[in-house]
Amino acid sequence: MINRKDVNIRIIVRILSFLLLIEGIFMWFSLPFSFYYKSGDAWPIFISGLITSGAGGIVLLLLGKKRNDRMGKREGYIIVSLAWVVISLYGTLPFLISGQITSFTDAFFEVISGFTTTGASILTDIEAMSKGLLFWRSMTHWIGGMGIIVLSLAILPFLGIGGMQLFAAEVPGPTPDKLHPRITGTAKRLWSIYVLFTVLETILLMFGGMDLFDALCHSFGTMATGGFSTQNASVALYSPYIQYVIIVFMFLAGVNFTLHYFLLHGRIKKFLQNEEFKFYATVVILFTVVITAIILFNDGGATEKVFRDSLFQVISIVTTTGFVSADYLAWPALAWFLIFVLMFSGGSAGSTGGGIKSIRHLLLFKASAAELKKLIHPKAFITVRYNGNSVKKDYIFNILAFFLFYVIIFGVGTVVMSAIGLDFETAIGATIASLGNIGPGIGHVGPVDNYAAIPDIGKWVLSFLMLLGRLELFTVLVFLSPGFWKK
Amino acid sequence: MINRKDVNIRIIVRILSFLLLIEGIFMWFSLPFSFYYKSGDAWPIFISGLITSGAGGIVLLLLGKKRNDRMGKREGYIIVSLAWVVISLYGTLPFLISGQITSFTDAFFEVISGFTTTGASILTDIEAMSKGLLFWRSMTHWIGGMGIIVLSLAILPFLGIGGMQLFAAEVPGPTPDKLHPRITGTAKRLWSIYVLFTVLETILLMFGGMDLFDALCHSFGTMATGGFSTQNASVALYSPYIQYVIIVFMFLAGVNFTLHYFLLHGRIKKFLQNEEFKFYATVVILFTVVITAIILFNDGGATEKVFRDSLFQVISIVTTTGFVSADYLAWPALAWFLIFVLMFSGGSAGSTGGGIKSIRHLLLFKASAAELKKLIHPKAFITVRYNGNSVKKDYIFNILAFFLFYVIIFGVGTVVMSAIGLDFETAIGATIASLGNIGPGIGHVGPVDNYAAIPDIGKWVLSFLMLLGRLELFTVLVFLSPGFWKK
Repeated sequence: MINRKDVNIRIIVRILSFLLLIEGIFMWFSLPFSFYYKSGDAWPIFISGLITSGAGGIVLLLLGKKRNDRMGKREGYIIVSLAWVVISLYGTLPFLISGQITSFTDAFFEVISGFTTTGASILTDIEAMSKGLLFWRSMTHWIGGMGIIVLSLAILPFLGIGGMQLFAAEVPGPTPDKLHPRITGTAKRLWSIYVLFTVLETILLMFGGMDLFDALCHSFGTMATGGFSTQNASVALYSPYIQYVIIVFMFLAGVNFTLHYFLLHGRIKKFLQNEEFKFYATVVILFTVVITAIILFNDGGATEKVFRDSLFQVISIVTTTGFVSADYLAWPALAWFLIFVLMFSGGSAGSTGGGIKSIRHLLLFKASAAELKKLIHPKAFITVRYNGNSVKKDYIFNILAFFLFYVIIFGVGTVVMSAIGLDFETAIGATIASLGNIGPGIGHVGPVDNYAAIPDIGKWVLSFLMLLGRLELFTVLVFLSPGFWKK
Repeated sequence: MINRKDVNIRIIVRILSFLLLIEGIFMWFSLPFSFYYKSGDAWPIFISGLITSGAGGIVLLLLGKKRNDRMGKREGYIIVSLAWVVISLYGTLPFLISGQITSFTDAFFEVISGFTTTGASILTDIEAMSKGLLFWRSMTHWIGGMGIIVLSLAILPFLGIGGMQLFAAEVPGPTPDKLHPRITGTAKRLWSIYVLFTVLETILLMFGGMDLFDALCHSFGTMATGGFSTQNASVALYSPYIQYVIIVFMFLAGVNFTLHYFLLHGRIKKFLQNEEFKFYATVVILFTVVITAIILFNDGGATEKVFRDSLFQVISIVTTTGFVSADYLAWPALAWFLIFVLMFSGGSAGSTGGGIKSIRHLLLFKASAAELKKLIHPKAFITVRYNGNSVKKDYIFNILAFFLFYVIIFGVGTVVMSAIGLDFETAIGATIASLGNIGPGIGHVGPVDNYAAIPDIGKWVLSFLMLLGRLELFTVLVFLSPGFWKK
């Protein structure tokens, strides 16, 4: 019996090793495409999978059979913080071994951008990369998205981070005080929805003329709100039909997956009456209408195309996907400025989207309005309500702290990127696009640019910001706090 | 006896009229300079003073002698929100009657920029304006500064706005639940300090070779943290001695005047141990050192001059004064970017400085750190402490709401300015420079530019932002809330 105050290193190593074992197997899923397209990258992919699975498998064997399975909050923090870093490190292998990305910094940036579902790329010519590697690149999104669903709907509420408790109570199934059974139950339910949507989108994209390869890659990028495309022109290359399909699924990927669960079980009212969903949908509609009007008024153009481009980019940025159907920086200044504002929104909590997220904005609006009301009616008893229930002050506090840390990290990140030599707009754009897990930003990291020209040190800073943003800040901040490591 | 629920319109009109009476008399203070310099603006100034004092005086006479003096919170909100607007309206008279500013929009912008101690100017050639009007222009700062001291240390704590209660308790003297005696006592004590510092600075500036006119105008701009100069080149024109004098007094003007009161009564320890003061001083020192280093490292130059320019601009921006000794936009990108970050700081609460203010930043940092600690030690009892006392959660909530409204208003303001046609940097710069009552921003409203080229509608928006920022947001927000006007 070990001291309960000690960190259970055994369980941490076991889980990280298990993740590597799985990651290696996922790598091999690229092999059929390597063979089919004779893309010449089968060998590096096979070796990479072997090393990754092998590393994980050997450690698991050495650890022997399960015992002392206790996993508390401390272990939770450590596993979550390390998981994305460890799988990103191994995830670089196919690119490095094949020699298609020669710099380790570039490879790590590309892979953590994938696993965090950011979609920021250092590739200047995406189409020059071999098919097998492109498939692995898109798959990092999809794996990352699976991780995020479990993280946000099972693990973070357990750790008590950033108001995530608020909708945790809505997750169907038992809520035990141990992490393990909770993850298993939630994961099974929600992953099946994730897989279902991915399959559905793939089929619909293939109806539009995409081949299986492109359809899968874009579905991975959509459902994970990632944004890696297989084309240099991203989704701008494809037909209106395909763009609308991607619009619909991006929108769905930005919704709390628990709501999808309710929807699929016929509880459509619970879906439509959810306040976060209503807020999220309102933001999308409002910004689309305004941006469409601005572009039509200033530049003119075919109404359907302008509407489609506006809708696509609004949803792509709100959900933090980052697919590109039009260069929003070429729009009238106000239109792209509104897109920039949306970079601070984020999809719904419990979706695969990153960023601050709709629920936090909604509750902060409500809390601020309540403060104003209190000044007007000093003696009135005013509470913040969400979905009919009054919200505990502690949750609001938690969300406020999240918001503050977000602003501080955004500010510090921008200053650091500026110190590295980026101009004002690029520094701001790269920071929020990374911290918000979006991908394209403004300035020289806009929708038709890439991150190749950022200095190496800047790529590491941005990689760290992606991780911070993806893990809802606090996971990493707690992990990095000296207080966390003291007994 | 009127119904207590009714708004006491009589007291509102009486006080606003009284302010006009005083304002008109202050206008005449410019007359000696008109005569001395034979600047030809004596007549317009005299007439303006007559109209202003006359309007106030006649209404006071009509109201007859005092009765029903009750003034509650509702009256407080209304008086504060209207006071700056009303005195700004009449304050435009000297400029309009003399014809030296022909556009009413421009005149109102210039005057409210003065009274809110912002210092943003539409004048393209300041030196072309006649001396009497320049003196009135600088005096609007000084009058505004007097108003702010009373507002922030007596009226806002009474209204319960934005964490102002926190240091209200430290204001010496009785704290009755009625507004009137409180204002009188506080005003007497703190205005004498304000006058003392102004006189002291004027004398020290004259030692440096300034004439009485320039010395007074610059002292007004300094002590009010305003920033109107009498020179096109602002303070860059003057000697290092004069710049250092202004540095010292800008720094003093950014300190809570209650602390000055303690200092002058020999309680130096209370001054130096004040947490807000320590935070404020640390920010100034830290940013000065870093910016000096960045400029020396990148551009070189004489160390003393670089240090002086850095120190001057850091203090000028932190205190939201806006005097210019060097064009910070010509500095290395990182250096001016840090100046931009400082635009979100603000001086101390209870000073004449605008912006978010040190105490709010400090308490938000502490509250965020406490949230992080709570995640690490879920069972620990963690409170936020300020100057040795634990801070009530309600105050923190209030400050958080202030911060959120500030961010929202900044965001909306920037979008609106962008919609009016300003480019990205100018829209951001003009918005924060107005909301924070700073004056110079970034982009085309930088330290060597002015606001002349902003479209009229933009000038009205910025005027409103100055008012919002100066009145700590909530005063105006409450005033504009429909709920405030319902019984």
